[in-house]
Amino acid sequence: MPGGEVLDVFDRVDVPDGLADHLRTVALIDHHVHGVFDQPVDRAGFEQSINEGSNDPIPDFMTQFDSPLGLSIRRWCAPLLGLEAFADADTYWKRRAELSPAELAELLLPAAGIERWVVDTGFKGDLITTPQRLTELSGRPSSSILRLERLAEELLEDGTAAQDFPAAFRARLAAAVDDPDTVGTKTIAAYRTGFDIDWSRPPDELVVQHARELAARGSLRLDSPVLIAFGVHEAAERGLPIQVHVGFGDRDLDLHRTDPLLLLPLLRTMAPVPVLLLHCYPFHRQAGYLAQAFDHVNFDVGLGINYLGVRSTGLVAEAMETAPFAKQLFSSDAFGPPELHVLGSVLWRRAMGIELGGWIRHGDCTVADAIRIVDLIGVHNATRVYGL
Amino acid sequence: MPGGEVLDVFDRVDVPDGLADHLRTVALIDHHVHGVFDQPVDRAGFEQSINEGSNDPIPDFMTQFDSPLGLSIRRWCAPLLGLEAFADADTYWKRRAELSPAELAELLLPAAGIERWVVDTGFKGDLITTPQRLTELSGRPSSSILRLERLAEELLEDGTAAQDFPAAFRARLAAAVDDPDTVGTKTIAAYRTGFDIDWSRPPDELVVQHARELAARGSLRLDSPVLIAFGVHEAAERGLPIQVHVGFGDRDLDLHRTDPLLLLPLLRTMAPVPVLLLHCYPFHRQAGYLAQAFDHVNFDVGLGINYLGVRSTGLVAEAMETAPFAKQLFSSDAFGPPELHVLGSVLWRRAMGIELGGWIRHGDCTVADAIRIVDLIGVHNATRVYGL
Amino acid sequence: MPGGEVLDVFDRVDVPDGLADHLRTVALIDHHVHGVFDQPVDRAGFEQSINEGSNDPIPDFMTQFDSPLGLSIRRWCAPLLGLEAFADADTYWKRRAELSPAELAELLLPAAGIERWVVDTGFKGDLITTPQRLTELSGRPSSSILRLERLAEELLEDGTAAQDFPAAFRARLAAAVDDPDTVGTKTIAAYRTGFDIDWSRPPDELVVQHARELAARGSLRLDSPVLIAFGVHEAAERGLPIQVHVGFGDRDLDLHRTDPLLLLPLLRTMAPVPVLLLHCYPFHRQAGYLAQAFDHVNFDVGLGINYLGVRSTGLVAEAMETAPFAKQLFSSDAFGPPELHVLGSVLWRRAMGIELGGWIRHGDCTVADAIRIVDLIGVHNATRVYGL
Repeated sequence: MPGGEVLDVFDRVDVPDGLADHLRTVALIDHHVHGVFDQPVDRAGFEQSINEGSNDPIPDFMTQFDSPLGLSIRRWCAPLLGLEAFADADTYWKRRAELSPAELAELLLPAAGIERWVVDTGFKGDLITTPQRLTELSGRPSSSILRLERLAEELLEDGTAAQDFPAAFRARLAAAVDDPDTVGTKTIAAYRTGFDIDWSRPPDELVVQHARELAARGSLRLDSPVLIAFGVHEAAERGLPIQVHVGFGDRDLDLHRTDPLLLLPLLRTMAPVPVLLLHCYPFHRQAGYLAQAFDHVNFDVGLGINYLGVRSTGLVAEAMETAPFAKQLFSSDAFGPPELHVLGSVLWRRAMGIELGGWIRHGDCTVADAIRIVDLIGVHNATRVYGL
Repeated sequence: MPGGEVLDVFDRVDVPDGLADHLRTVALIDHHVHGVFDQPVDRAGFEQSINEGSNDPIPDFMTQFDSPLGLSIRRWCAPLLGLEAFADADTYWKRRAELSPAELAELLLPAAGIERWVVDTGFKGDLITTPQRLTELSGRPSSSILRLERLAEELLEDGTAAQDFPAAFRARLAAAVDDPDTVGTKTIAAYRTGFDIDWSRPPDELVVQHARELAARGSLRLDSPVLIAFGVHEAAERGLPIQVHVGFGDRDLDLHRTDPLLLLPLLRTMAPVPVLLLHCYPFHRQAGYLAQAFDHVNFDVGLGINYLGVRSTGLVAEAMETAPFAKQLFSSDAFGPPELHVLGSVLWRRAMGIELGGWIRHGDCTVADAIRIVDLIGVHNATRVYGL
Repeated sequence: MPGGEVLDVFDRVDVPDGLADHLRTVALIDHHVHGVFDQPVDRAGFEQSINEGSNDPIPDFMTQFDSPLGLSIRRWCAPLLGLEAFADADTYWKRRAELSPAELAELLLPAAGIERWVVDTGFKGDLITTPQRLTELSGRPSSSILRLERLAEELLEDGTAAQDFPAAFRARLAAAVDDPDTVGTKTIAAYRTGFDIDWSRPPDELVVQHARELAARGSLRLDSPVLIAFGVHEAAERGLPIQVHVGFGDRDLDLHRTDPLLLLPLLRTMAPVPVLLLHCYPFHRQAGYLAQAFDHVNFDVGLGINYLGVRSTGLVAEAMETAPFAKQLFSSDAFGPPELHVLGSVLWRRAMGIELGGWIRHGDCTVADAIRIVDLIGVHNATRVYGL
């Protein structure tokens, strides 16, 4: 737990006791997370793994430690590795390099105070741990999320004929519904097409045609709007929650074409299964609005919390504007270094304490109200949405 | 007045005395507001009426009280109904249900401390009080705003021939100019077409043609860009101020197509009557920019203030960035429950006190400057714009 | 220096000593600035020069002193002219009118504490001082920025034949590379086309054709996307840094078409010379994201800092979210009144002290970290980017 011997998430900030005690100890559901690195990384690889936007090595003229996330790593993770808080970057790296991936995970993951990981396994699965291994390392159970685009690609890679593709896709979704480990799906339309596509449900003939065209290509990277819309509507028809990558991500996406407002044509017409808008920065106010406007829309500001570091307090505050408290979830979107798994939790707890603590202190809500908000966003909404 | 026996808007926040005293007592012009409910509502109806974005009943898994607005109702309105601050939702509802619509209005409206209501009567007029009735219930005078799209629909509903439509519309605007109760007009282009339309002034032949097409339809819901541009330019030619719904509203609108920057082609070419950009969240920074860039452009952050509750302090602060203080107005955009009429005022007073109080305390302005800013935004700008 | 006898930038705010001392004295590189007025202005001219968005005289019903920038002028510049802080607008103007442009510059410029001015000479050069004169008045050296659109216009105005245009343009860029005073280039595509153009590198034949069409017009205002893309790619090929006007500016530009995300097609394909996204408000979060995503992208929030006045603290804070600290620069974008040159610096120092001081106080970074961030943004990044 973040409130253990090593970390006090409210060190040097004044948060009302009842709320602080709760935020130090409440076990969270991380509703969108990936595995930790399975193999050692060198320093260049580590620095690259703490830059979300770029796909290149960090240039020579700088270090990625000189960033809000870098400061947070030195502040919060150094003590977990036995160093002083704010150990410098070289000292941090020297100590970190002495530890195996498993040792790092076992030192860091418990400090996240997570009750359950809901794991997206669809990205670079060869670099990171499986949900099973994440559970072994953390001692906490995992559930899985099925990536819709990856599922389609796998079917075609495995030789499914285009004309059989719709039925095969549906069969795999039906199996996912029956699989207790799979609690939802995810679309990365943001990376493949942007959101300004025709979101209407395509007829099977059109799906077959697009599957055929995709299969005929050398590389099976699904970027057909028809196949993406097909996947989303099929998942919705089967009652599966759908996570949607929104906003902040690497530069492969056109960030302005991932404004969640561009999803309006989909949100208005789809079967109303829970939709989880992920990340959303810098469109989190738009996401909060959609969460007020549509019963089935929920959102988080994960990923941004880690990358904003100390500034995540402002982001967490802006995320509590127009959305009802029953429509926001906690996530880290950590991928790779277990520093990200622990910081996602520590920074969120701290930000919630600072923001809600201010509300209490100024008479805008009670301690009980604040605890209720923490529990909704941190635990209960995920339980409801995924039926955990 | 909000500073009366029951409410102290600066309870538990530290605002310099001169400013606090002024903000507790200054009588505001609410330049964009609707009536209060004329008939009792049940709890489901009440909860729905405190969700702006959705048009559906609040789903079973949640209560709309679990929102920033819900917290503010429990904080500020409960004492006005004789309850403890932060009475829980059930207790609040139980007490509220004992009171008739008129009793609720008479208990709540005075706490808004409004000098004059400028009332938009164009939406669901059958559910809410007329301006006359609002005046009776509150003891404060009202002025009216004429909705341009509704005016056009009424003319056609009443059998005006399409070829007579331009002249009839102009005659009604001329009558509005002469009517001392009507102080401005409003367009809801945001709901009917979005702002990305051709805003050039259409020739009468084209207007007649579009009026004919509209009249030929079963339902007279004006959604022709030509008729909308016609209405706006005609109002401007007659010197009538024009309110424009911008941003935050229910999900019938495409929020990204109500970015006020999309109005640039209109703002650059129209007769320069006062334009009032209403609400604007989450595009309030863009609205503030337009208010700096164009002499005739003004804006408010009403509606958002209510829905952001405690977080409205940040919104009010962001609204004082690039716009001159002579170009912003106060409004509640309250519709239905009189809780919204009082909160629009209480939350704005409180936010202005917190933000401007910080400016004073840190030496960024004097108490006299802060009071001048309050008076411009709260009273004088509306007086000037509408010629009150 | 801002920390001299007259100004204490941390008057009435509590900033940790080590950081405060550093921010009071560090000499900054103002990497994007213009000259000061060379001739006296009357009050109408002065008020117009402190409104960025409009191109018209300030209307009679208001004074531009009633704005965040106006408050900051009265707060910080009045004492530099020998008045009390917060002298009223008339008193301020009376005193200011007693001083010649040179006297004003010599009183105000030193308080900016600038080590070097990097001067954009491309706009209304007849109204303002040259870099040489700015250096005389301030006692600090200047470097120059070459405007790409102005260079093209000059070549054609000087009678360069269209078919010789590409080579002549390249020759001038080569000369700029060799000129130690010229440290970079600038594009104002924002004002001429918006960013939603074809950014691919045009072949010379197409460039010649567009040069021919432009030369054939009476007015040589370059607004061809082809010529703009040509200029940018040619500058990049020669290794020249490229400043890009982004966001906030006067109403001649379509603000929504200057969202820096619309530059993605350029940023992904150009030769990776340093790109400097200037101003960026209200798209500064988007700019910060691009600075994380691309090694060669840097940004500032100049101009906005002046116009937001006291509220610039929030802007400076939001500018330290996703961008590495090695990718942001300080600038004032001052043009005309030397008040803008000093405020750009004073408000930035103050905002950095308030924001980073909070980080230190709450244990989010050390004093040494904060000083390092100040030095990177205020000095070192400019040194690196421009090779000063």
